[in-house]
Amino acid sequence: MIRKHILKNIEEEYVTESELIEKLNITHEHLKENLNKLKNAGYDIRHEDSKGYKLFNVPDIIEPFEIERKLSTEYIAHNIHFYQEVTSTNDLAKKFVDNNAPEGTVIIAEQQTAGRSRSNNDWASPEGGIWMTLILKPEVSLLEASKLTIVTGVAIAKTLHDNFNLDTGIKWPNDIMIGNKKICGILTEAVTDYDKLKAVLIGIGIDVNINTDDLPEDLHDITTTVNEESSEEIKRAEILNVFFRIFEEFYNEYKEGNFKHIIAEWRRLSSTTGNRVKVYKDGKAMIADAVGIDTQGALIVELDDGSLEKIISGECKIIDE
Amino acid sequence: MIRKHILKNIEEEYVTESELIEKLNITHEHLKENLNKLKNAGYDIRHEDSKGYKLFNVPDIIEPFEIERKLSTEYIAHNIHFYQEVTSTNDLAKKFVDNNAPEGTVIIAEQQTAGRSRSNNDWASPEGGIWMTLILKPEVSLLEASKLTIVTGVAIAKTLHDNFNLDTGIKWPNDIMIGNKKICGILTEAVTDYDKLKAVLIGIGIDVNINTDDLPEDLHDITTTVNEESSEEIKRAEILNVFFRIFEEFYNEYKEGNFKHIIAEWRRLSSTTGNRVKVYKDGKAMIADAVGIDTQGALIVELDDGSLEKIISGECKIIDE
Repeated sequence: MIRKHILKNIEEEYVTESELIEKLNITHEHLKENLNKLKNAGYDIRHEDSKGYKLFNVPDIIEPFEIERKLSTEYIAHNIHFYQEVTSTNDLAKKFVDNNAPEGTVIIAEQQTAGRSRSNNDWASPEGGIWMTLILKPEVSLLEASKLTIVTGVAIAKTLHDNFNLDTGIKWPNDIMIGNKKICGILTEAVTDYDKLKAVLIGIGIDVNINTDDLPEDLHDITTTVNEESSEEIKRAEILNVFFRIFEEFYNEYKEGNFKHIIAEWRRLSSTTGNRVKVYKDGKAMIADAVGIDTQGALIVELDDGSLEKIISGECKIIDE
Repeated sequence: MIRKHILKNIEEEYVTESELIEKLNITHEHLKENLNKLKNAGYDIRHEDSKGYKLFNVPDIIEPFEIERKLSTEYIAHNIHFYQEVTSTNDLAKKFVDNNAPEGTVIIAEQQTAGRSRSNNDWASPEGGIWMTLILKPEVSLLEASKLTIVTGVAIAKTLHDNFNLDTGIKWPNDIMIGNKKICGILTEAVTDYDKLKAVLIGIGIDVNINTDDLPEDLHDITTTVNEESSEEIKRAEILNVFFRIFEEFYNEYKEGNFKHIIAEWRRLSSTTGNRVKVYKDGKAMIADAVGIDTQGALIVELDDGSLEKIISGECKIIDE
């Protein structure tokens, strides 16, 4: 993790080589080798004879040392496992749970070859996105665990909305949308030992520095990406750092039983409420008006005869009428 | 209405006496007399020998000429009837309806001696507040007319929230609150001819430039006023002008059948949703969680057994738990 420490030392001001060697307690050769690695990875590190080294720009890298040098959480993402290519981060996370990975462990990959989404569809996962799984171990019932879908959706929507000026909305239960295009999907899975909850896996896919042209054709009209929506260049590690901080806050509230505040944020960020929707109850499709979300995160719809129904889980399609 | 025209001419820049006389087509004496009236009413009008007259500051006056000189509506408040003291503007408005007052007529008073609120309580109406009734004549059923309560509540909350930086929320069905204190009440009444709707009277009371100390003692802890909440001095005519404009927009949408947008604004401004409330259904009190509002403006509550109920009308008390 020497690269993290080098970057931390040269990010604010010029630092001489001898200062670096002394501070980091490494050899001249070791320093040179790591500076070269960083430069090759795209870090814009400049050297001036009298002043030393200074960091001018960072590449869009999601390797642990880049995320960790700005991490401000108490326990979320304190263990990051990075892979260049995996089948799916959720699948890999199950093995980490078997090996007793601590709460807050993150599995992150540059590419997934078999990324999944809800209802077992594929999830396109080319380079430039955020493909990761968060391992959580709350001491709650399976029913309570399902609320983590809402917690995560709110944390991502709030991250992109409040910190990166993206006009995100949440489509119930947990798709993050900009207008009617999806920018992030969440796949929550429970790992159980008989009926005891061992862990909850939160699989998150955010389309960041991807062009929709590079996605499969059937996604072109229904997907958008951070770099297509933002006028600024946004780096994945920046998004991750804000997300981990906000997620930890909400997750702590959830563990303390304060789900009310999370639901209030959901209501603020909802792009579902007020729309005509197609939802399913007991296998039966119905067209209705989405009018809100209840205290547990269930969608409330109003049928045309004025009656109210709660939709606890499933898909929700917004209908143009 | 010569005072309105004098003010319009001198509000932006200095205008000489001869220019005023020519523009307004009045005599020198008539001009002098009205300038004196304005100065006596508190208008800060200054005169410089070479440049003429200019308006520097206006008093907190709600007489028609002051409201009308800034009015930007198409038809709302194009007829304003002002009284120094009335029993209640709603009572007086009924007589105007009998005399075929046009839609948008406003009855406004400096003081009410017998102001009323919902459930027939008194409404304290000292000088410094806005006490008025708006006469509307929409061609709708009685059931549709009841939605005007929501339209008006949203328009007032939005006026104070978006234009005067007050942290207003709407307590269902239509109290305008800042925190847990009321700042505005609305009393909607229908005037019918047998079962045909003749007019809807929207009685509005806003506590603007009033000190709560001057209100009856039982209101001290549950009432707040614009001048106590705002760091700036806000004049009643300014509030009225913004309100009339916003109300007209919402009312036009309502008449076109676009209630959806008004409900969306209600949801944004709601201070009820997310709270524990005491409401009444079929005369029976119940404690429940307020979770939203339906397409028609009914409050949706969730009982502790998870069932949903719609509350179509009545009182709603927010409970600290």
